[in-house]
Amino acid sequence: MAAPAAQRELGLSIIGLGTQYPPFSIPPSALDALSKKFYPDSPAMQKVLSINRFTGIDQRSSIGTPDHPLVNGPTAPTITEINKIFMSDGVPLAVSAARQALAEARVEPLQITHMVSTTCTNSANPGYDHFVARDLGLSQSVEKVLLHGVGCSGGLAALRTAANLCLGHAMRGLPARILVAALEISTTLVRSELDSINADQDTRIGIALFSDCAGALVLSNGLGAADEALAPPVYELLGWEHHTIPDTESDLGFDVDPLGWKVVLTPRVPTLTQGVLEPAYKALLGALAQPPPESYRTPADYDWAMHPGGATILTGAEKALGITPEHMRASYDTYISHGNSSSATIISVLNRLRAKEMDSMTPGGRGPRDHVVGCAFGPGISVEMCMLRRNLSTTPSGLQTPPETESEPSEAGAPASESGDDPANESEVAAGLANGANKPVKETGGGNTTADGERLETAKKAESFISEALESVELD
Amino acid sequence: MAAPAAQRELGLSIIGLGTQYPPFSIPPSALDALSKKFYPDSPAMQKVLSINRFTGIDQRSSIGTPDHPLVNGPTAPTITEINKIFMSDGVPLAVSAARQALAEARVEPLQITHMVSTTCTNSANPGYDHFVARDLGLSQSVEKVLLHGVGCSGGLAALRTAANLCLGHAMRGLPARILVAALEISTTLVRSELDSINADQDTRIGIALFSDCAGALVLSNGLGAADEALAPPVYELLGWEHHTIPDTESDLGFDVDPLGWKVVLTPRVPTLTQGVLEPAYKALLGALAQPPPESYRTPADYDWAMHPGGATILTGAEKALGITPEHMRASYDTYISHGNSSSATIISVLNRLRAKEMDSMTPGGRGPRDHVVGCAFGPGISVEMCMLRRNLSTTPSGLQTPPETESEPSEAGAPASESGDDPANESEVAAGLANGANKPVKETGGGNTTADGERLETAKKAESFISEALESVELD
Repeated sequence: MAAPAAQRELGLSIIGLGTQYPPFSIPPSALDALSKKFYPDSPAMQKVLSINRFTGIDQRSSIGTPDHPLVNGPTAPTITEINKIFMSDGVPLAVSAARQALAEARVEPLQITHMVSTTCTNSANPGYDHFVARDLGLSQSVEKVLLHGVGCSGGLAALRTAANLCLGHAMRGLPARILVAALEISTTLVRSELDSINADQDTRIGIALFSDCAGALVLSNGLGAADEALAPPVYELLGWEHHTIPDTESDLGFDVDPLGWKVVLTPRVPTLTQGVLEPAYKALLGALAQPPPESYRTPADYDWAMHPGGATILTGAEKALGITPEHMRASYDTYISHGNSSSATIISVLNRLRAKEMDSMTPGGRGPRDHVVGCAFGPGISVEMCMLRRNLSTTPSGLQTPPETESEPSEAGAPASESGDDPANESEVAAGLANGANKPVKETGGGNTTADGERLETAKKAESFISEALESVELD
Repeated sequence: MAAPAAQRELGLSIIGLGTQYPPFSIPPSALDALSKKFYPDSPAMQKVLSINRFTGIDQRSSIGTPDHPLVNGPTAPTITEINKIFMSDGVPLAVSAARQALAEARVEPLQITHMVSTTCTNSANPGYDHFVARDLGLSQSVEKVLLHGVGCSGGLAALRTAANLCLGHAMRGLPARILVAALEISTTLVRSELDSINADQDTRIGIALFSDCAGALVLSNGLGAADEALAPPVYELLGWEHHTIPDTESDLGFDVDPLGWKVVLTPRVPTLTQGVLEPAYKALLGALAQPPPESYRTPADYDWAMHPGGATILTGAEKALGITPEHMRASYDTYISHGNSSSATIISVLNRLRAKEMDSMTPGGRGPRDHVVGCAFGPGISVEMCMLRRNLSTTPSGLQTPPETESEPSEAGAPASESGDDPANESEVAAGLANGANKPVKETGGGNTTADGERLETAKKAESFISEALESVELD
């Protein structure tokens, strides 16, 4: 189902994706255990732990268990120690995600012309992208761009930047094969956040949401493709829209600190993000070279890859755009099974959306749509939106087995066994269900047979609690 | 003296530049005073202080004097405090530099399409570029890219990234007016570095070199220029070359720390950077759409805008490329008068190179050349090189008076009076001379009449001391 030529004007295609979660999954109860072990009981702590039970997140993916020495010292680890773990435990995840994306794209490391990376949980020179490039065996002259300061919107900001670079190479008649990588290791900040909750008695909910992940994709400008036997497009990139909401710098942020970074998140965020969605969507339509086909009249006619920053972001999108959880099925699924992995999440969502299980959960059983809107929010507050055209005629089944694969734990908190499955096809839904996904009061245990639809519905209900809790929090 | 059409193939021009140094200048003696005040005497401290007297740097530009409260606490400031000063005292410098560049370019803030920024001395979300964009009144939908992890090579990495984005817009037939900004506040790290020298007895020379600066430029892809009365090119950008030297990740870096960032600099750096210059230069020539005119046969036929990372970088370039200090006159001048301001330095050098005083200091009096090679090194170790074509038919005299201007102190360590002069024309050489530039043993005092040539010669001699000192330092 190739797009009409006019719509392919930019010639930009995502031809491979990869997601690599770390081997551990942290149930909400883990936060209770750490809190009890190191901090006295207090009203703020109780409030955060209550919210933590009702985020709608079943498990947060992490590079370690709650018994990891890094988070069991007498004090919180420093940014120096956090940097070391990012490099030792994080970089291999990004390498693995990139290898998956390269394998699916049928692109050799030396064919990569640029690398656009992002992270908000590391500040090293050389940047982590240098080590990923080295381990992958990219060319010494690959043009690297490491985005900073963009938090959760980093994944789509990197895709947008890569798109511009692709077009720059097209202008010179040169092929571009750009590796986009996002890596976030957030769970190492748990002690620092608990410190702040205890000391300041602030309702800081970041630790209840954030998790670890690496995502990667390969973007091609199509030039020279005939000679290289590139993979067919997974998604074509048709256009993007990006802007900042005025006077919101203090509402969403990630401030550097001796103990890492401290989450800034005010109760205004859900309202602000909800309010900007429709104008951004309209601006996105205006930015496309060609209007979408006539069957796309309202936001509900698309599928949506929304960054699941929190449950209120997703339900806000439902209200603002007249869409349902089923439109954002991959966003909910990723959120429930893995949590919010900041910039890496949106790549995971886009990867997840094309899995067979997801296609069986469409709104009203209408089936998947080829036009998909990607959306993420970041500090600024900035909104990143893009229009993708999913290639429904291909499935990820053509993948070679990647060198390392995304893994799913069979038991919460336990290391996962390596699976040789295709990462996009493996059953996160099934894993989530087996772990009692979205039954907030019961964090562990297998054999739950909740239907997918119920699971999404429960997530919707869970968020109202968070919304109420947030509304009662004072602005910073 | 327009370039032949064929050479303008990329259509990329720098049409405005701005440099904003902070109001204070720190003589080498300031480091002795801080050391004596807070740290015991020790062999490593003595060695660093000796090297500090012979760096060839007359004064390092700084946002404060050695009496600033931030560096006079009982302990070194934390990365949180360093972040606050970066935002309060650094961001206005970047705004000022950007206003100068916009004024010269005759570009209104709302005409800016993208902003490519860099820093290695901040890690905030939203990034500092957000605040610069806000204060300048750029569009809410300006596409921002903040580079991280690239240290001193950030200025040219940002120019290269901006060039690619410019071409991406050209591919779509859209005008691009890209604001490139570099901001580094390094002098706030002095106590942290002194801590490490004292505790580890390492010969850490970063504090003897680093300074504070903001640089900005406007890059245009030329589209729509006829309608906008843009300024003529200051430099055309003809091509670039970028690569990483294998197995050198541990030789040059800037590691995040609770007290900011710690400089990594091994004695291998001068040898490594010297060795890569000629291959990079050859690769650059190969990357150009058109070869340079026949009169450009050897590196000595060009002018050079070399990042003055330290005196050994400059003297290494002389040996490797067969060039003289006069080829790199703006590099030496910037280094002597202001120190190494990391990523912002190269923009300052490019701005300085076009000043009338600089044109009178060419090799053998041959006059300035229109082809200029820009070069900087960063962590990785990465080398960034670009070919520029200077527009010798224009001078910066057409500048409107910018809202704020680069300032030069009349006395070391004292706040400078605001000057209304054109920043590119004001006499850094004269200021340097007045301050006894490059007479290491006598850091302050005015009225020195050392000739410019002598000044460069002395700088060359000073570096040999550093080179010897570095050679005796053990690898980390």
